[in-house]
Amino acid sequence: MSFYPIVLEMKKLLRSLDGCLDKTVAFATTKKFDVNTLLQARLAPDMFPLLRQIQATCDQAKYAAGRITGKEMPAHPDTEQTVDELRKRIASVIAYLDGFTKTDFDGAETRSVTTPRWEGKTMAASDYFVEHAMPNFFFHYTTAYAILRHNGVEVGKRDFLGPLPYRQP
Amino acid sequence: MSFYPIVLEMKKLLRSLDGCLDKTVAFATTKKFDVNTLLQARLAPDMFPLLRQIQATCDQAKYAAGRITGKEMPAHPDTEQTVDELRKRIASVIAYLDGFTKTDFDGAETRSVTTPRWEGKTMAASDYFVEHAMPNFFFHYTTAYAILRHNGVEVGKRDFLGPLPYRQP
Repeated sequence: MSFYPIVLEMKKLLRSLDGCLDKTVAFATTKKFDVNTLLQARLAPDMFPLLRQIQATCDQAKYAAGRITGKEMPAHPDTEQTVDELRKRIASVIAYLDGFTKTDFDGAETRSVTTPRWEGKTMAASDYFVEHAMPNFFFHYTTAYAILRHNGVEVGKRDFLGPLPYRQP
Repeated sequence: MSFYPIVLEMKKLLRSLDGCLDKTVAFATTKKFDVNTLLQARLAPDMFPLLRQIQATCDQAKYAAGRITGKEMPAHPDTEQTVDELRKRIASVIAYLDGFTKTDFDGAETRSVTTPRWEGKTMAASDYFVEHAMPNFFFHYTTAYAILRHNGVEVGKRDFLGPLPYRQP
């Protein structure tokens, strides 16, 4: 199974996330508040705030593609403090994903993945993609979206999904 | 590309959702409230409440497998009012997904999908899976989880992801 189409979907959804942030900036302008205050909003005191949810969304997309192909990944030291900086990070990951082709994902079934946090344990690359990176990507993206909705930002499911490839009858 | 591994992941996450509801029942018992009151909780007044998020999670998993393979789908008329009834629905979709094998997903690239709401429009089955059913599944599952977290239920990322297939060093 090639995971390339799902990486393309993650890239599309990073653009959707950027579009949601565009609407967030507009919302803050209308309501006359500093948009960056929203980056500290959370749904529960022991959940990550919006800032970290967006960073994690970016990371999971980067890891999904980079770790299962073995391609070098750009460093992102989590220094962002503003919506503008977060949007640059999103753009950086989109540019990284632009560098992949379908053939980069050939042979993912035979590769193995590990991370510094796993203390020597590994996971089959395909398992890592399906059971770790992909659900984590969606977890953080949806939670970021939910924080925006909870705070009144006027985004909807279409903003979340992005354009859909309908064929006319 | 075969979507079977991702359908297996959805099945696993439906079990995780059921596990989260188990913890929700325990939380309600400890706090001495009727667990079913939580089913009306929402993150925003114009978002679906927990009840509908769980129904939609079930539906998207069912649609993902059923629509791209063309296999008949069980009817679920959205009559659930209690956590017990929702858990039965989750179990029913898990049982439905148990009936699929890898070969059922062969040829999904050439199939086409439509739904009653699309007014005659169609989508390539593989596009439908990757750009519609899969992100919608994760959207509703994560939002259900977020509503639980927002209301103090003690679930965490491990409950969300379920067991991971680590290999020991």
